[in-house]
Formats: sequence, structure tokens, C-alpha cells
Amino acid sequence: MTCELSSSAISASLVAALAARLPAARFEAIQARIDAKTKPLGALGALEELAQRLVALAELRGVTTAERLAAPRMLVFAADHGIASEGVSITSSAVTRQMVGNFLAGGASVNVFCRQVGMALEVVDCGILAALPASEGLVERRLGDGTQALHQAAAMTREQALLGLDNGRRLALERAERGMDLLGVGEMGIGNTTAAAALMAALTGFSVDACVGRGTGVDLGTLLRKKQLVIRALALHQGPAGGDPLELAARLGGFEIVTMAGALIGAAESAVPVLLDGFVSCVAALLACALVPAVRDYLLFAHCSSEKGHALLLEWLEAKPLMQLGLRIGEGAGGALALPLLRAALSFYDQMASFEEAGVKV
Amino acid sequence: MTCELSSSAISASLVAALAARLPAARFEAIQARIDAKTKPLGALGALEELAQRLVALAELRGVTTAERLAAPRMLVFAADHGIASEGVSITSSAVTRQMVGNFLAGGASVNVFCRQVGMALEVVDCGILAALPASEGLVERRLGDGTQALHQAAAMTREQALLGLDNGRRLALERAERGMDLLGVGEMGIGNTTAAAALMAALTGFSVDACVGRGTGVDLGTLLRKKQLVIRALALHQGPAGGDPLELAARLGGFEIVTMAGALIGAAESAVPVLLDGFVSCVAALLACALVPAVRDYLLFAHCSSEKGHALLLEWLEAKPLMQLGLRIGEGAGGALALPLLRAALSFYDQMASFEEAGVKV
Repeated sequence: MTCELSSSAISASLVAALAARLPAARFEAIQARIDAKTKPLGALGALEELAQRLVALAELRGVTTAERLAAPRMLVFAADHGIASEGVSITSSAVTRQMVGNFLAGGASVNVFCRQVGMALEVVDCGILAALPASEGLVERRLGDGTQALHQAAAMTREQALLGLDNGRRLALERAERGMDLLGVGEMGIGNTTAAAALMAALTGFSVDACVGRGTGVDLGTLLRKKQLVIRALALHQGPAGGDPLELAARLGGFEIVTMAGALIGAAESAVPVLLDGFVSCVAALLACALVPAVRDYLLFAHCSSEKGHALLLEWLEAKPLMQLGLRIGEGAGGALALPLLRAALSFYDQMASFEEAGVKV
Repeated sequence: MTCELSSSAISASLVAALAARLPAARFEAIQARIDAKTKPLGALGALEELAQRLVALAELRGVTTAERLAAPRMLVFAADHGIASEGVSITSSAVTRQMVGNFLAGGASVNVFCRQVGMALEVVDCGILAALPASEGLVERRLGDGTQALHQAAAMTREQALLGLDNGRRLALERAERGMDLLGVGEMGIGNTTAAAALMAALTGFSVDACVGRGTGVDLGTLLRKKQLVIRALALHQGPAGGDPLELAARLGGFEIVTMAGALIGAAESAVPVLLDGFVSCVAALLACALVPAVRDYLLFAHCSSEKGHALLLEWLEAKPLMQLGLRIGEGAGGALALPLLRAALSFYDQMASFEEAGVKV
């Protein structure tokens, strides 16, 4: 196993490298240009904050032209979960692999939405039950054949979690090296809202009731069982983990969650903005921020889904999502749907007339 | 004056023609197709409702191919308001004309966003203070040189209001005849949030406090004065109007508001969906629905702005906006920003694989 990262190494080197890389003075200069546009001050709301961040990050990457969103890319992280055999979803783990096949064939919602907005898409197999044959668009970064059931054992070893972080980080660094200028993230993994809810509860201290939702749409009986499993998992793992985020991620998380968290860290290192999707991707963001707090500066939040814990998690992250569409699909679908808003933010910044140019005298 | 409409004629003929034109069975058939797609039931949330409505309306227009959003068009209705001379805005009425010039030159936010999404744009002069020279993209439907100050007199005559409705209706019917398959609406008019708030209060019974907001961003003193003016206007006009929506629109509304309301009615007659923008356009929708309730079936709500009364008005209309961007700009900007979501709804409906096609067995 090649692994340059350890939890402390992440905290030490990356926190130092990333913190304060975005000076307030840059944001103020960008906002001054926005304030000269023909509109009331602040009238474009969230789009103004988007423009600030996208322009500032592009400048960090050395991009000062309007070509700041030329190569957006969606990475869909897939894995299976031991907990799925406890019946916490409307369907079985076999569907994870079938849906990965659907992604590769281009028939899922994330495919449709990525095509519409011109976003490249790759699926990262982080450890679905049985590997698929190699194919275009499939990246193999398997940590195992699915995790262990988290209410009975650690979902994965600490080494697997570290390897997942490293896999994700390298993947993002490589893609950024080859020009990726926006990273959208999504996921697929039957059972992963259970793992994500457990990890959210452990990392935030919010109650199990606040973190566990209906996922794909389970009935009340299943929801109650799902909560009981999370309660048991927390009782089993919180003591031994002693509050260490990496240890909690290993014990409660999923292969796609740790790999995605690594990708967020790699994107941040590359000054590439990240467009988050639903609940599970935001739990990966929570983990990434617990490991490297400055990652937060690189995150954009597409939407608030109807999954129970998502709104609270967004509050915890002090994030204002762009859309409220009642989605509960994952896959990265919400991120692809939000991409036109990012383009709009850059378009108004680049193209809107100033009061002076338009001859408007307020 | 040529005017075929009267308030009672609208109610009688159009309500009959439009009501029940969208049978529940059609929606159910469309939803059945949506439910076969590779996703949990209902997982695309608001996009599923969008797809239902867009597909059903296209079928009403005889369109059964994927070409259902081939010619979206934004109409920006501009007018001036007598009340503006009371200082209810951060700026003066002169800016209405200057901003119309900015629209025609392509430099405003709505221009940028319409270009990005491929939406044609026209500006309708419904009565700004001084007419502009004829130019491409400018449609002249002037009802006067601005309205009267609504706290002192009726903003316009009943005849002007009727002519405005007729102008808007004909405009939408003509554009639909020539292929328009989505009508986006926006507005420009210094002072128009005051008129819109007064009309909202009169048509809904909500308090002045709940309906009056900061518009372009006035300070607290101006906000309080704005509320006092609306209170005086309601005291002056509500008795004589006797609850008649057309009379209230004439006394409290604006040239752009009545003309826009007419356009919504014309679009509904043509089975063309309407994409609403901010507070003022939603007050026009409120008026249109008060005159012809079935218009509601044709309305799509792009966003909830940060203008005070907007959220409450959306609730009144039982509308769930697609985005929460903190906009307070008007112009139709929010509608243009939401257009990609409408396209996404049709894309998933047309392109997403079914469980059977994808070989996914749930």
C-alpha cells in the first residue's frame, strides 16, 4: 500500500498550505467590480458570492480570462455497505452495481444532467461488491468488496480509510493537473445514507433522530430500525475512536465517503472549486473539513435535498444551498443541475455593464 | 380604444375555456412514465412536477416531440410610477428609462442570463415617463406617461387597466402564434414594489407590514414612509373599489403590472407555460389569477427573492419556487436563471432509462 497521508500529516501540512490562501482583499476587489454593475447593491444575492469565489479561485489557479469553467467534471463515487444486508434501503446491494452499469451506459439522471450542461463524467469504483469489467469512464480505486456492517464491526480499517483519502486526493490532483476547473461530486451505494448519518452524528454531536432519514424512501418501520442500527454503531465505535475524525470515518463511513473526502482535499489543494450534491456528499465534505478545515473555502452547495439530516448539516457547515428542489437521488444530479448558476455568476461578472458604461445615473 | 375585454367577459369566457383543460388522467399517465425511470419514486422532487406540467401543456399545444422548449421568450414590461416622486426607491424615475436603454443595449443582468440560456428578449414599454425612439427589441404599448401617485389618486383609469390587460393578452397570443413555447416575464419600473405591495395587500388581505419590503434596498426611514403611503392608498381606494380586482389593479397597480397580467392570461389561453420572476411579476400573477383562476395551472415559479412580501405571496399562490438565491433585481433575471431546470426536467423525462431498459431490478 502506497500512502503518503496520515491523519496528522493532513492536518499539519495541508492546513498550513491552504489556510489564508484566499485573502479578504481579493474578495473586496472582486466585490467592488460587482458593485459597479447596473443593479442595486447586493441584488444578485447568492450569485454575487458565487462570482466572488469562482473568480478568486480561478485567479489562484492563474486563470484571469473568462475561461474559468471550461472543464467541469463530475466524479461519482460508488461502493457497497455491509449494513445494507440489514434491510435499511428499499432495495438490495445488487442495485449499486446495476446502477453503476446504468451510469456507464449513460441512462441515469446524472448522465442526462451532465450531458445537458457539458460536464464530463467518471464513475469511481471505491469498492462495490463485485468489480465490473474495465470500461471507459470507470476508474477503479477499490478498497475492498464492500464495507463491514457498522453496527457489528468497524466498516473498514484505518489503513483502508487512509488509502481511500489518498486515492481521492490523487485523483482530484491528477484531474486538476489535466485541466479540470470544477469538481462535481456524487455517489451511489445502497445503504450509504445509514453510514453517512452515523458519521454525521459522530462528527457533529447531533442526535441520531436528526441525522437519520428515509434515504431512498423507506417506510416508518424501516426508518426506526435504521435509527436503532445507527444507535448501536455509535455505542460500539465512539468510545474507541475517541473523537478522531479519521478513526470515526473508518469505523462508521463508507469507501465512497472517504474517497470522496480525499477528492475534496485534492481539489482544494489545486484551488479547484467543488460542487456538492446531496446528503452523502455533504457528509464527505464534513469529514474533509474535520481533517482540513480550509477545504471549506472551496465548497459550493448546489441544493438542499429532502433527506432528513441535510438541512441541519448545511447549517453546521454554514452553507446556503442554491436550490431547494426536494431531490433525494444522490449521484451528483443536484450538482449538475446547479452548474448553469455558476456559469451565470461568471457571466454577469464578465458581461454586465457598469453604471458608467450604460450611462445609468443613480 | 379597441378593447374586447371587460372584467366580466374575462371571467365568463376564459374561465370556462381554461378550466378543466388539463385533466388529471394526463398527469397520471405522465407520472407513470416518470415512475418507471431508474430512480426511487419521487426522487427528482420538483423536477417531476415540472416535467408533468411542461409535457402536459406541450401536448395541449399539439407538441409530442422533445421540441417543447425550442423558443422561450422573455418579455420585460417597463413603466413609471407617480409614487416614485415620494422617494420610495433608492433612485429616481429617470432610471427606468435608462435601464430600458441598458436592456436594449444588452448590458443588464436579464440580457446576460437570457443570452446564456438562449432566450429571446423583448422590452415592452407600457408607459415609462418619456417614450424611447423605436428600436429592435422594443415593443410600444404605452398606456400613458407613468401612473398617478396612488396615495393621492387612482394610479390609472379603469379603461387604461383594461387596455393594458388587452395589450398584454394580445402580445402573448401573437408571440405564441409565432412559436413562443415558454413566456418568461420580468419588469422594470422605479416605484413598482410600492404599487405591487399595495395591490397584494388589497387582493389578499395580508397586512401592509407583510407586503411592503425594501425594494431596491431603501433604508428604514424610507421603508416606514413607503408603508405609510401604502396605508393611505388602501384607505383611499379600497372602499370605492369594493373588492373588484380590476378596479383595485387600476387604482393601486402599474401599467407594467396590468399589461403583464394580461400577458399571463394570453399565454394560458395559448397553453404556453409562464415562468415568473420576483415579487412584482408574482403580484401580476396574483391579479391574473384573481381575474381568471385557471391561469394558475400555467404558472412556474423560478425563485423566492429577498423582497419581503414574496415568500408570503408564493404561499398564497401555493407555489413552491425552484431556487432561493436572495435575488432582489426583477427584470426577469430569476426566470432566465431557472430555464435550465425546465430543460433538465424535460431531458430526464425524454432521456433517462427505465428500470427495464437499464436492467436494474429493484
